[in-house]
Amino acid sequence: MPANDIGVIGLAVMGQNLARNIASRGFHVAVYNRTAERTDAFIREHPEPRLMPAYDLKHVVDSLKRPRRVLLMVQAGKPVDAMIEQLKPLLEPGDMIIDGGNSFFLDTERRAQDLQAAGIHFLGVGISGGEEGALRGPSIMPGGQPEAYEAIAPIFTAIAARAPDGSPCVAYMGQRSAGHYVKMVHNGIEYGDMQLIAEAYDLLSRGAGLAEAALADIFAEWNRAELQSFLIEITANILRTVDPETGQPLVNLILDTAQQKGTGKWTSQNSFDLGIPIPTINAAVEARQLSALKDERVAASQVLRGPARSFDGDRSALVEDVRAALYASKICAYAQGMALLRAASEEYGYGLNLADIAAIWRAGCIIRARFLDDVSAAFRRSPGLPNLLLDEEFAARLRQRETQWRRVLCTAIELGIPTPAMSSALAYYDAYRSARLPANLTQAQRDYFGAHTYQRVDRPGTFHTEW
Amino acid sequence: MPANDIGVIGLAVMGQNLARNIASRGFHVAVYNRTAERTDAFIREHPEPRLMPAYDLKHVVDSLKRPRRVLLMVQAGKPVDAMIEQLKPLLEPGDMIIDGGNSFFLDTERRAQDLQAAGIHFLGVGISGGEEGALRGPSIMPGGQPEAYEAIAPIFTAIAARAPDGSPCVAYMGQRSAGHYVKMVHNGIEYGDMQLIAEAYDLLSRGAGLAEAALADIFAEWNRAELQSFLIEITANILRTVDPETGQPLVNLILDTAQQKGTGKWTSQNSFDLGIPIPTINAAVEARQLSALKDERVAASQVLRGPARSFDGDRSALVEDVRAALYASKICAYAQGMALLRAASEEYGYGLNLADIAAIWRAGCIIRARFLDDVSAAFRRSPGLPNLLLDEEFAARLRQRETQWRRVLCTAIELGIPTPAMSSALAYYDAYRSARLPANLTQAQRDYFGAHTYQRVDRPGTFHTEW
Repeated sequence: MPANDIGVIGLAVMGQNLARNIASRGFHVAVYNRTAERTDAFIREHPEPRLMPAYDLKHVVDSLKRPRRVLLMVQAGKPVDAMIEQLKPLLEPGDMIIDGGNSFFLDTERRAQDLQAAGIHFLGVGISGGEEGALRGPSIMPGGQPEAYEAIAPIFTAIAARAPDGSPCVAYMGQRSAGHYVKMVHNGIEYGDMQLIAEAYDLLSRGAGLAEAALADIFAEWNRAELQSFLIEITANILRTVDPETGQPLVNLILDTAQQKGTGKWTSQNSFDLGIPIPTINAAVEARQLSALKDERVAASQVLRGPARSFDGDRSALVEDVRAALYASKICAYAQGMALLRAASEEYGYGLNLADIAAIWRAGCIIRARFLDDVSAAFRRSPGLPNLLLDEEFAARLRQRETQWRRVLCTAIELGIPTPAMSSALAYYDAYRSARLPANLTQAQRDYFGAHTYQRVDRPGTFHTEW
Repeated sequence: MPANDIGVIGLAVMGQNLARNIASRGFHVAVYNRTAERTDAFIREHPEPRLMPAYDLKHVVDSLKRPRRVLLMVQAGKPVDAMIEQLKPLLEPGDMIIDGGNSFFLDTERRAQDLQAAGIHFLGVGISGGEEGALRGPSIMPGGQPEAYEAIAPIFTAIAARAPDGSPCVAYMGQRSAGHYVKMVHNGIEYGDMQLIAEAYDLLSRGAGLAEAALADIFAEWNRAELQSFLIEITANILRTVDPETGQPLVNLILDTAQQKGTGKWTSQNSFDLGIPIPTINAAVEARQLSALKDERVAASQVLRGPARSFDGDRSALVEDVRAALYASKICAYAQGMALLRAASEEYGYGLNLADIAAIWRAGCIIRARFLDDVSAAFRRSPGLPNLLLDEEFAARLRQRETQWRRVLCTAIELGIPTPAMSSALAYYDAYRSARLPANLTQAQRDYFGAHTYQRVDRPGTFHTEW
């Protein structure tokens, strides 16, 4: 008699940890991996009675209560399609496949359509929090048929992270690919956060000559107030970590070439399709690209000189200024990400609730932060808010930090320290608050060389000038 | 007996002007449009004996010398596919279809493959210069089979613009979609140029309060030296143009919402696929997106305040600084575009010659400029140059302008004038010349939360830390 609540397919570390998390909440889990050795090793290491090893997919499916719930934790891309093809003939209408990987949302869109034709439910679910989150409580962003979500909600609710107020970090996002879309933007915002922190570190380290131990103290201090977040916390820990072999700060021994797995890039590319500016997130992706050109940079450092100046100001004042610049830039990065979500909700018919999204990011995921309480509150106060910058509370916070923010960027420019993300955030702020931008000249040029026409500010219509 | 040298399909203004240009060089041209009225009107307006109207495609094809050369000047997208489908059964192996529109390069890739199977040659050809260029001499970027290019080269060479040294602005770019790819990047660079000019204008107008007539003089002056270019020239003309009805400078009456047709966006999106940073071009596309948020900006201008400061410095010094900043930023934008071309050449197997590309952009196209002589020379001197910034001559020009460039950006920041493209250019410069970037912290964070591993600077291998 079928006794398992869910099947987990794919036992890489994320799959393993989710299965353990689910089992630890009292659910019975059938686990399967393409290679039986890994299944065996997993069960040997975690001999938990609620984890049942299975060695073929039929065995998994037959062991499940109905409606059957099969969670795929396999690599994004072709492996997901291959697994769906194998599962389809084994499942019945009303059963569901849940893709918990970092799938591209348009793949999820296509799969949802395919499976709908077969009467099988499909949920595309963003799961954030890395290995630790998967095991102890991730932030979960599910998209798909609402009735399918209802059927899996008890498990997701049980395993999700808990926000400081005790509420579980899971909420139904919307139809079809909504969950994977939201997870993609989460990752884009994560790129932004990470790059802004990297720039703050670079300014204080390379720019002002602060040592790693002092930097660790500064980030730890920042983690006690408005900047409190997982990424600031681990930055402090990283900066304090000493390489056991050389006795040097480990961070200094790590190669400065950042890699990426695609979700940041997808966010950028999609923003261009939707026509929504997310310059700070784009700058973060570009910064990773630039970091990868290590050999060229080393060569260029011999050819291109920087300013002769070194920092001779008050370091403690600079630290406070950088803190303000980081926070102000962060607000802009989140404003961009949330604006992208709003536009996508309209374009793809998701019906996203921005307040809920910010709320389930408060714990479990990589960008978890005190800050998200306030973001959620802003969209709760004003669900139709076109942009976070228009919220009075955030506007006030920017106002308080504006002078410091501008001062930091001038310092960076004078020192020759690149701050692409922080600069883009300020440019975004200054452009967004400009009732009038110089795009009138751009339109005039387009009309001049291409007869593309223009509109006027003083009357309706479409105009062309023989310049 | 077939007497026409080429058929031109599609008689919107670009098609009309190209047909007239070709006929004016002594070639016989069959012209066709989906609606006969337009064909009739065109011939009525331009009763040139070498233009032969045709009212069905078979008539066009039958009138052509072999190998038949059919130039499509129809709207990019489905209309191109539809026309190819209609022409295919009428053509024979060895004949050729030439797509002269702004097609997306991956569409060209697909069409080239389809037609190759049918033995029909296909050329994807970027044509830049707008209406005027089409009529008097465009810059032409042809891609496809070399033997097909040979067969059309006499016509292209005859109609192309002439560079200052007299050489025609056309050169074989490479196989398949190479021509449309190069044209796409040309347009991306054009977006960059236009945005940099818009920022210079905004700084001097909104920032320093210079009037339009004074600005027109400044741009006209700039057009006499290192910034000499079509876009600077028309900027001066635009700023001098007075609205006949109101007597005001026309530019002030034009709505500040810039539109776009897709090629800039494609360049940005493709750069993310290739992993090549083009932040200044991306900033230009983002600036158009921001300009489109007119209503939000007007609302935001009431909520978000800027700095109280207004410009109180020396205006002539600022003008000289902005000129230097514009030129330095332009170098960076071109460095990015050329680096993208180099990477695409490798990725797609085009075998692009960057010196040739810069050379054929010297006249006819929208970005035509004295500057491109120097870009071409740099890649002629050193064909393997990884980045224009590594060229000694350009490095020296940046060095001369560096102080002014940094000063302008600080002024913009202090005044609250957004300069996203100029800022991104400086950040690119500062990052590119950094042997060491803070991406070591980014990699440490990725390893911390996702066990993504890192490399070390002091020994080979892949490492993971239990932080």
